[in-house]
Amino acid sequence: MEGPDGSGKTTQIELLETYLENKGYDIVIAREPGGTVIGEAVREIILNPEYQEMSHMTELLLYAAARAQLVNQVIRPALAEGKAVICDRFVESSAVYQGIGRGLGVDTVYEVNNYALGDVKPQLTIFMDLDAEDGIRRKKDQAELDRMELEDMSFHKRVVEGYRHLAQLYPERIVPIDATLPIDTIHSMLVKEVERRFFS
Amino acid sequence: MEGPDGSGKTTQIELLETYLENKGYDIVIAREPGGTVIGEAVREIILNPEYQEMSHMTELLLYAAARAQLVNQVIRPALAEGKAVICDRFVESSAVYQGIGRGLGVDTVYEVNNYALGDVKPQLTIFMDLDAEDGIRRKKDQAELDRMELEDMSFHKRVVEGYRHLAQLYPERIVPIDATLPIDTIHSMLVKEVERRFFS
Repeated sequence: MEGPDGSGKTTQIELLETYLENKGYDIVIAREPGGTVIGEAVREIILNPEYQEMSHMTELLLYAAARAQLVNQVIRPALAEGKAVICDRFVESSAVYQGIGRGLGVDTVYEVNNYALGDVKPQLTIFMDLDAEDGIRRKKDQAELDRMELEDMSFHKRVVEGYRHLAQLYPERIVPIDATLPIDTIHSMLVKEVERRFFS
Repeated sequence: MEGPDGSGKTTQIELLETYLENKGYDIVIAREPGGTVIGEAVREIILNPEYQEMSHMTELLLYAAARAQLVNQVIRPALAEGKAVICDRFVESSAVYQGIGRGLGVDTVYEVNNYALGDVKPQLTIFMDLDAEDGIRRKKDQAELDRMELEDMSFHKRVVEGYRHLAQLYPERIVPIDATLPIDTIHSMLVKEVERRFFS
């Protein structure tokens, strides 16, 4: 599940989880960055607002390190046990935030992340499409913003544009959904996509 | 400056620093992993003895992240100002500890680290050659061992063998020195190598 902050990823993951559990699936939810004890420790470094001097490549490699731990400790074992895994952000977040937002390039991001992912690739990526302004507006009500949220609006606009580009480049893998639609409508669209892909 | 723990790297760096300063050079010493505030935070994760579940790829990517920060924040700016940089461990440590010790392969290590290094490559690497048993024996006197030092003897033997292989593969770049020789003898050999390379 991908998209800018405030686009409703968590809500939709919870609804999808219930739907899949009712179908009899064991579901594992994984949150990025983090999702493991080691990943959470890495996450604290990445998002620390004091670390303004962090180089873009350091940021990319830290995200990849947290992801490698998530893949090896949580996702690969869950898949091996026949469970279904829903990730709250995954490699596409690095593609847009570090590859496009930071300007490191999407190819570099995928190359570095291939080491973290190995043979574990997402089968379906949902992109919750929401204008950067709308996502950030909801987040601004929070008491404290993390290092990524503190970036200026042009950064967050590049991120959303990046998601839209990727969804156009890889239409079979990345499905965009209008995040301004009502929650139930989005959930129905999502279920339809999942049924079409995995249950038909 | 490379070699197993306990091989005298720090002592030789200090002697070399004094020698180069007397020649009129501005010297920057960089310690790995760490050497920056962000790198030190990453170092604490890498070496935390509680994190026994850390995947080998996570370890490789964390070292690369700390190295990227060191390169971008310390080494590249220092070189741009005409300073000389001495690193206490660098990419060859990852080649032997993660590539050979952990079995990820030297090619994978160099590929990942090329992203961290960019155009910054060491001009001369000194390998302080010491049998694994001798290095570990000195470290065992410490109160607490970190996650790398806690590895078994076969791991540390693979590391030293790895260094010896690399020194044979890249004789122009990596110079081995017998670390059991007296400190002053080693320093003289090191100075000779530096003079031959940079001052003749």
